[in-house]
Amino acid sequence: MTHQLTRPAARDERPRSVDAELRRRARAVIPGGMYGHQNASPLPPDYPQFMRAGRGARIWDVDGNEYVDLMCSYGPVVLGHHHPGVEEAAQAQAELADCQNGPAAVIVELAELLVATVQHADWAMFAKNGTDATTMCVTIARAQTSRERILVASGAYHGSAPWCTPRLAGVTAADRANIGHYTFNDLASVAGAIEAGPEPAAIVISPFKHDAGFDQELVDPGFARGVRELCDRVGAALVLDDVRCGFRLHLGSSWEPVGVMPDLSAWSKAIANGHPLAAVLGSDRFREGAKKVFVTGSFWFSAAAMAAGVATIRALRAEGAVEAMERMGIALRAGMLEQAAAAGIEVNYTGPPAMPYMTFAGDRNHVQASAFAAATMRSGAYLHPRHNWFVSAAMTEADLERALGATAAGFAAVHAP
Amino acid sequence: MTHQLTRPAARDERPRSVDAELRRRARAVIPGGMYGHQNASPLPPDYPQFMRAGRGARIWDVDGNEYVDLMCSYGPVVLGHHHPGVEEAAQAQAELADCQNGPAAVIVELAELLVATVQHADWAMFAKNGTDATTMCVTIARAQTSRERILVASGAYHGSAPWCTPRLAGVTAADRANIGHYTFNDLASVAGAIEAGPEPAAIVISPFKHDAGFDQELVDPGFARGVRELCDRVGAALVLDDVRCGFRLHLGSSWEPVGVMPDLSAWSKAIANGHPLAAVLGSDRFREGAKKVFVTGSFWFSAAAMAAGVATIRALRAEGAVEAMERMGIALRAGMLEQAAAAGIEVNYTGPPAMPYMTFAGDRNHVQASAFAAATMRSGAYLHPRHNWFVSAAMTEADLERALGATAAGFAAVHAP
Repeated sequence: MTHQLTRPAARDERPRSVDAELRRRARAVIPGGMYGHQNASPLPPDYPQFMRAGRGARIWDVDGNEYVDLMCSYGPVVLGHHHPGVEEAAQAQAELADCQNGPAAVIVELAELLVATVQHADWAMFAKNGTDATTMCVTIARAQTSRERILVASGAYHGSAPWCTPRLAGVTAADRANIGHYTFNDLASVAGAIEAGPEPAAIVISPFKHDAGFDQELVDPGFARGVRELCDRVGAALVLDDVRCGFRLHLGSSWEPVGVMPDLSAWSKAIANGHPLAAVLGSDRFREGAKKVFVTGSFWFSAAAMAAGVATIRALRAEGAVEAMERMGIALRAGMLEQAAAAGIEVNYTGPPAMPYMTFAGDRNHVQASAFAAATMRSGAYLHPRHNWFVSAAMTEADLERALGATAAGFAAVHAP
Repeated sequence: MTHQLTRPAARDERPRSVDAELRRRARAVIPGGMYGHQNASPLPPDYPQFMRAGRGARIWDVDGNEYVDLMCSYGPVVLGHHHPGVEEAAQAQAELADCQNGPAAVIVELAELLVATVQHADWAMFAKNGTDATTMCVTIARAQTSRERILVASGAYHGSAPWCTPRLAGVTAADRANIGHYTFNDLASVAGAIEAGPEPAAIVISPFKHDAGFDQELVDPGFARGVRELCDRVGAALVLDDVRCGFRLHLGSSWEPVGVMPDLSAWSKAIANGHPLAAVLGSDRFREGAKKVFVTGSFWFSAAAMAAGVATIRALRAEGAVEAMERMGIALRAGMLEQAAAAGIEVNYTGPPAMPYMTFAGDRNHVQASAFAAATMRSGAYLHPRHNWFVSAAMTEADLERALGATAAGFAAVHAP
């Protein structure tokens, strides 16, 4: 098989005819033309809806335009697109079998590898969606504690099931019963939320505040320790939602550098470098709850994605991927902040270097962010105006240079709209 | 790559050492040793927990024992394991890209193909789990009707989310609020359930009654038409849960032969021959509700499973798969009923020929069913004592002969335990 992956983006005359034709056909057979987080219609109009290929840190849309990928498929691609070791492992397993009457041996290998890699984990269960994993954590905590109430941070995203989806169409009041809210990094608000209702089964928390469209906020270690103490005091599970951050910030739970261990953690996205997999990891204290719940899915035991998961975790370690992402993220941040300063544009660049986001001072309704993102995209780097970005471990100096060339065009578009 | 797939089952001395060692390791790192519907611990002790490979209608466990597959991975495998056309299509797409910043063109192709194949469908949305699809149907119906209540048949399985999982550990009362119950094939019970509460957003129904562990029951066409009329009268969505049956009984919705069209239908399992994919199909009447809801997942737009879906639907048609499954299912039933009669064993063989199940008269707690299934399995055909079976389109006359040889041993074990 031969593929034409290397057609360069034509910057002056960006082809969009294939994308436009696919959008026209999609409007007939997909409600609204597309749905969910990959619906391009809220993006600036020049963004592609449909993508064609990826290699390393480069991606191509269906019209052949090439980009440095700063979204990484919204998180799953951590080692770069089409990582040879991961693809070979998945393909070798698929050659034997993927979905069978029982799991393959690789489920044990992957569970052992995760338990060996993640400090708080004594056991693992697997699923397909991040939402599966967060919902399982909540269900396990309820089964273990015989309590119903859970606490989540206001504005945090923990999935798209009725109990957590950010848009309320089709969601009932009962779906949101038993949920209390606190404010991220505000320990008094957690204590207050505990006081405000029956004792909680779980406190669900993200490793850092990455709510879409807002400046990101790293966790205050004192807050993390305080939440851990409150959970211990009231007998609630501390549930870390590591779906978005897991294995991007640390080769282990994202709160290990902070020194705080959750009881249960939810994983997905990067754990198999784009292959469909989610996981719940837990401590022995919550093993009984995990035994009691009935959770399953037709493809939860499929072996190819698990083989990809084993290969991904090994490659993350062997290739120093976390360090590479941080190093390249720091260089990207330095370059962009220098460009902003040179242009006299006031920005707020937040989050860990490997998962950054940038807002513009006084930018109401993301007008400047959209102009910046659209011009950056047109100039060959794909990022998002209202969602945090992702740096992959495949990013090279050449990719960085091209990305910074694109962001320079982005700042120019903001400076002189 | 070479694989040793053809090692015959050693009937007299069944190796189980690899499986036993994997079970030992799994107990340390997976709660209860395994979870969900593929947990082998409730099965007779000689069943394998871990599987190794599949080709066509033959499967191998991790100890090299070979079986004719009568479970088809609990439904997903419809064309047989490792169908060349499906695997080539998935692999060609994966070679370009799978999980990207947007869907690939194949999402449009698959949506168009489903709309052309399924009569009631004007549009399609995709997800990963059957539970995703049934939950989306309920959410879309609620968004469209601005109602909360849904009706489901008592004992029916619609997934493992808190609103529908059959085991209540970790499930709250609020998760089950707004759910009413009726009895399958009892129209008066549906009318009664409607009367008993606020007007429903949806009535959720399976194509036939396939509750695990019970005799199966085909739908009474008058009941199906009556439910359609009741839905029209009260303005509720008729939601057909075609997750388990879809594309096994008819190349279209499983109620097309009955002449009853649902408003929304949930699909998964067989639509991509084992690749992880789920779909919601709907009529234009519910398109607005589908536009309103926010449902998504990190891998819902992944392209390889969609390419497998396109190839599966085309192969189902080109290979006459539905007819093949029915023909082989009828032959299996005839052979097994003849064996039962010859042995003087009274059985109840129920369901469509392609998705059969068999119980033994007066068999409390599935004692005879377990003895039958275990002996059949030891003799080289893999079926389940408490879950319906699946016949794949890959089953040959040789597979049928071997399967009937195994069921003969199964009946002998029941006859003289």
